[in-house]
Amino acid sequence: MALTERTLLGPGPSNPYPEATAGLAAPLLGHLDPEFIAVLERTCERLRATWGTDNPVTLPLSGTGSIGMEAAFANTVRPGDVVVVAVNGLFGVRMCEVAGRYGAEVVRVDHTWGEPVDVERVVTAHPSPALVAAVHAETSTGVRSDIAGLGAALRRRHPEALLLADCVTSLGGIEVAVDEWGVDIAYSGTQKCLGVAPGLAPFTFSERAWERRVEIPPVWYLDLGLLGGYVRGGPGGRAYHHTAPVAMIASLEAGLARIHEEGLGSVTERHEAAGRRLQDGLREMGLELFAAEGHRLPQLTSVRVPEGVDSAKVREQLLTDYGIEIGAGAGDYANSVWRIGLMGHNARLDRAELVLTALRRVLGR
Amino acid sequence: MALTERTLLGPGPSNPYPEATAGLAAPLLGHLDPEFIAVLERTCERLRATWGTDNPVTLPLSGTGSIGMEAAFANTVRPGDVVVVAVNGLFGVRMCEVAGRYGAEVVRVDHTWGEPVDVERVVTAHPSPALVAAVHAETSTGVRSDIAGLGAALRRRHPEALLLADCVTSLGGIEVAVDEWGVDIAYSGTQKCLGVAPGLAPFTFSERAWERRVEIPPVWYLDLGLLGGYVRGGPGGRAYHHTAPVAMIASLEAGLARIHEEGLGSVTERHEAAGRRLQDGLREMGLELFAAEGHRLPQLTSVRVPEGVDSAKVREQLLTDYGIEIGAGAGDYANSVWRIGLMGHNARLDRAELVLTALRRVLGR
Repeated sequence: MALTERTLLGPGPSNPYPEATAGLAAPLLGHLDPEFIAVLERTCERLRATWGTDNPVTLPLSGTGSIGMEAAFANTVRPGDVVVVAVNGLFGVRMCEVAGRYGAEVVRVDHTWGEPVDVERVVTAHPSPALVAAVHAETSTGVRSDIAGLGAALRRRHPEALLLADCVTSLGGIEVAVDEWGVDIAYSGTQKCLGVAPGLAPFTFSERAWERRVEIPPVWYLDLGLLGGYVRGGPGGRAYHHTAPVAMIASLEAGLARIHEEGLGSVTERHEAAGRRLQDGLREMGLELFAAEGHRLPQLTSVRVPEGVDSAKVREQLLTDYGIEIGAGAGDYANSVWRIGLMGHNARLDRAELVLTALRRVLGR
Repeated sequence: MALTERTLLGPGPSNPYPEATAGLAAPLLGHLDPEFIAVLERTCERLRATWGTDNPVTLPLSGTGSIGMEAAFANTVRPGDVVVVAVNGLFGVRMCEVAGRYGAEVVRVDHTWGEPVDVERVVTAHPSPALVAAVHAETSTGVRSDIAGLGAALRRRHPEALLLADCVTSLGGIEVAVDEWGVDIAYSGTQKCLGVAPGLAPFTFSERAWERRVEIPPVWYLDLGLLGGYVRGGPGGRAYHHTAPVAMIASLEAGLARIHEEGLGSVTERHEAAGRRLQDGLREMGLELFAAEGHRLPQLTSVRVPEGVDSAKVREQLLTDYGIEIGAGAGDYANSVWRIGLMGHNARLDRAELVLTALRRVLGR
């Protein structure tokens, strides 16, 4: 068993809230135990509050964040459906790939990486999209896009189109308001700003998405109709679908309880303050931020590797000498960008100062 | 957070080995951390030893047991492929459903529930199957089928056909010998005899299955080609696919270490002894076992609910008064059969005596 301790300041996972770790190790319950059903119901209720939604179909899917993306497309895309995807980073690229596997006619709207999604270009990309998809917080670049604005523009131009938002790196770190923004389908991961280990994908699905869902999706494991029989129950009680990952759900419940006890507003302020200090400190050090100004995520900062500096060597030294993990860049920026996350339990000023100090020492600045 | 303690003697989850619980709560590592990669490699190596295989493609999939079934069919079935499925319980039924979603021409060979798979009927069901699938240990009935015999008969009759075995309830409890038996594709779950919380699906895939795999399966999350880039690495190092559920994998590694320290032979003997005592005790109590004699799983015992007894009430009383969870029956036997598991950490004589005593008290026998 690994006993090494790390300060996880990459793009995720982050160090879990202590309450979430305790939840993982709590006595295990069966997935049909009335006490576990209560845990599951509280989890779904707290997820609704975190998403800002009343959607009955709000649940943690049994896989890591990527399974949320898979479930989103598997339950909504029929072969030939036009899916407009805003691509401004790796996860937009992935959405095109996944939607394509379900037979979508993908209309890809490319942006420069590091820039936010251009709402006007996305809503005018096709005369009649069935689904429009965008990433709220691009994990690959540290950019925040305006999902509220996208939702409003979409309602004006294509009121029939469903809106899908990837919130893997936003939920629990910055404001997410699914109902207010008109988002129909959204998913997240537990290991980022929610401060829980990776293993679950919080998911929410609007009533109108439900009415238009694929009745028999190709993927049995992610069939929302069948999952609903367990998570929501029915006239005959709760139908077994698959064994729920009970320890992970108990951990998520504990993490969400912690967040709501602190208060969602206070949690997002904490992320904001930590991220601002980190970004100020990096600039004071003479480093250049990668994401476009005005669109930077507080919870995930992308910064250019200075000329002549070996990106991997710095990350290795941070890990070896300081036990600090930061991330490489993604895609073409693998060696020219670092990604530093201050998420969940790590969204704190002490973590910001710690990584700034360690980086300063390693870079000799 | 739930503090209720349960003795989990249903069809799974079982109470985890203490080492596995400690693994869950150990300091979290990043999924690309060299120390975590070492944990993952040890996990895959120990899984190979547990499966009895040299298959390079042996890994824990990031979902509960059912995701193993999904991955098995998603990566092997092309539309129109003939898939012969031996059905002698709920999980055989489910295999038909999942294979059908991937476009298989399913040839279903039905058996009476409670009976083992009839090897001869299965291998003669179709003149040229692409894939033959059977459940090793039927969780719904407590029956063991002869996968070794099925493999041998299949090699004689249809040497080209791939053999798929559902080992969700067998791995870590009774002998499984993937290579020796000629199994090409097998999956399990962590929450049964492996004595780990639910959340991962140990999976193994033979070289010949790999050569014939679906190059671009419909499900991106379970694409073995992409998963291999992370789990096995390549010339350019390890490619990120999805964030691995690191806490669950650390827990599985610890659970497997415990099993191999005790010795696989000793672990299966422990399951055998506990199950025999339980089955003897139930008969001494005048109860009738459900599974066919000679084909009973030691780790999961199915027993008929005596006439006039309210099945649910007994289970509820065991849970409330004794903190013991046992399972209802599955499918048509929901109210007429109980399922009692002695799996993993619970495969012990004290657990057998505990459930016998409690059941005797509740039934007034």
